[in-house]
Amino acid sequence: MPLIECIANISEGRRQDVLDACGRAIAATGAGLLDVKSDPTHHRTVFSFAGTPAQVREGALALFESALAAIDLRKHKGEHPRLGAVDVVPFVPIKGATMADCVALAKDVAAAVAERHQLPIYLYEEAASSPARRNLEDVRRGEFEGLAERMAQPAWAPDFGPAAPHPSGGASIVGARMPLIAYNINLATDRLDVAKKIAAAVRHSTGGFRYVKAMGLPLEDRGIVQVSMNLTNYEKTPIFRVFECVRREAERYGVAVLESEIIGLVPSAAMFQSAAWFLQVSEFSEAQVLENALERIET
Amino acid sequence: MPLIECIANISEGRRQDVLDACGRAIAATGAGLLDVKSDPTHHRTVFSFAGTPAQVREGALALFESALAAIDLRKHKGEHPRLGAVDVVPFVPIKGATMADCVALAKDVAAAVAERHQLPIYLYEEAASSPARRNLEDVRRGEFEGLAERMAQPAWAPDFGPAAPHPSGGASIVGARMPLIAYNINLATDRLDVAKKIAAAVRHSTGGFRYVKAMGLPLEDRGIVQVSMNLTNYEKTPIFRVFECVRREAERYGVAVLESEIIGLVPSAAMFQSAAWFLQVSEFSEAQVLENALERIET
Repeated sequence: MPLIECIANISEGRRQDVLDACGRAIAATGAGLLDVKSDPTHHRTVFSFAGTPAQVREGALALFESALAAIDLRKHKGEHPRLGAVDVVPFVPIKGATMADCVALAKDVAAAVAERHQLPIYLYEEAASSPARRNLEDVRRGEFEGLAERMAQPAWAPDFGPAAPHPSGGASIVGARMPLIAYNINLATDRLDVAKKIAAAVRHSTGGFRYVKAMGLPLEDRGIVQVSMNLTNYEKTPIFRVFECVRREAERYGVAVLESEIIGLVPSAAMFQSAAWFLQVSEFSEAQVLENALERIET
Repeated sequence: MPLIECIANISEGRRQDVLDACGRAIAATGAGLLDVKSDPTHHRTVFSFAGTPAQVREGALALFESALAAIDLRKHKGEHPRLGAVDVVPFVPIKGATMADCVALAKDVAAAVAERHQLPIYLYEEAASSPARRNLEDVRRGEFEGLAERMAQPAWAPDFGPAAPHPSGGASIVGARMPLIAYNINLATDRLDVAKKIAAAVRHSTGGFRYVKAMGLPLEDRGIVQVSMNLTNYEKTPIFRVFECVRREAERYGVAVLESEIIGLVPSAAMFQSAAWFLQVSEFSEAQVLENALERIET
């Protein structure tokens, strides 16, 4: 049975009763709640849940239902940019699911939500209807407060739903993407300029790898600096290649890599891929992993 | 539910009907048959199967039943050394199982088989009753043909069963061990002496790593040489350390690593461990692997 993960971001990070109700609504559909992370300063919460396409569909619809009823963006202020009460809802292929499955699911959920709640929906990333809508930051520009003006432009007609903002819920951004890996490399130096130069070297926006977002920042309590990254497609821009590039760039400045960190979850394939590359394993197959062989006999 | 794997080696590698019957007998118990590998020259077959301790116990007992009925070692000749019709039966901890579980299972199976078939059993590796019996090669010395003479010595009384060989089945060696990784490193040279020197440098018997067996051999059709290894405890002697040592030793002779090969199955932990080491990931936990997180919600 194909497995899909949904990482839904809502614009509420403070009222625990609302968050609990949202979590219960998702879990009641049969989707498995993997993680809930709130940030009161951002006033935002991320629900990660997974299941079959049908389970994840119901989970997402239940979350829209609960969150739209409880959140009024006209009264919402937080540090994180947002366009909607339910802000961003990407679907991610896990086991046995393809990107095409996730694109289909995104469109299906978008259509259902738009109709049920009279909510405008923009499709983004792999589900985007045009290149101008692929990037989340582009779709969200102007935020909730600038939404009515923006939607008045024909170029920003939504993919589903009415051509004007939902009064309290704004608009939502739904799509499909690869699993994202939050990956940081800590350098054995306190020179922030080095971290910033390396971030600029490896990130896509300034000439680096296609699927890397990066910034250099200080870890002041430890007296070191960090290249903080999001790897948005580990199949096409693998961890090992980014690591080796950062390591070499640091060397250029006489700086060593102290350690790296994987924040949150990482697909096993990204780790297998890295082990096989460093060990120079020819023709490694995931079918050789003992646990995968066991799973084949179990199912 | 804890999962244990059994890798049973029997002294029959030619009669397909016998092998089919053994495979069916194992599968009928509910244990999952992972792999069957026969070698007619060795006249030997390896059955790999896995399941809960109870399933694997029944699978092993069924294999003893079928194999002892069909194999007569008095008529058996093959290139591989052997002591019994069912020669070696190790149990290996997989998911949620400990080495202690496997030692207990080995003793339980040994006692049951000895009583049912009046077959002498030696415990080896982690289940061994004395250091002299840990090593498979030590227990098997003299093979089936020398068994009666050897068993006459009080030092070689079996751990279970009668103090004399089974007429057609000899004796069996049952135990518990870590999963073994068959790992080869191919060198970009045809100099066999280099492969042999490196094998001697990394293997335990000549001063190398505690859990490495190694030999240097030519791959004549490709015009290169190979360091062919068994890694018998990847937790204590990890793949990456062996790889880096072989790479550095080869460099000493002006030789590069061409590639490496993992033959058969490898535990995911061995790959995660290597990826995390090369990437210098601090505090990596298997709980961070997406598939493991999914499994936690499924069960």
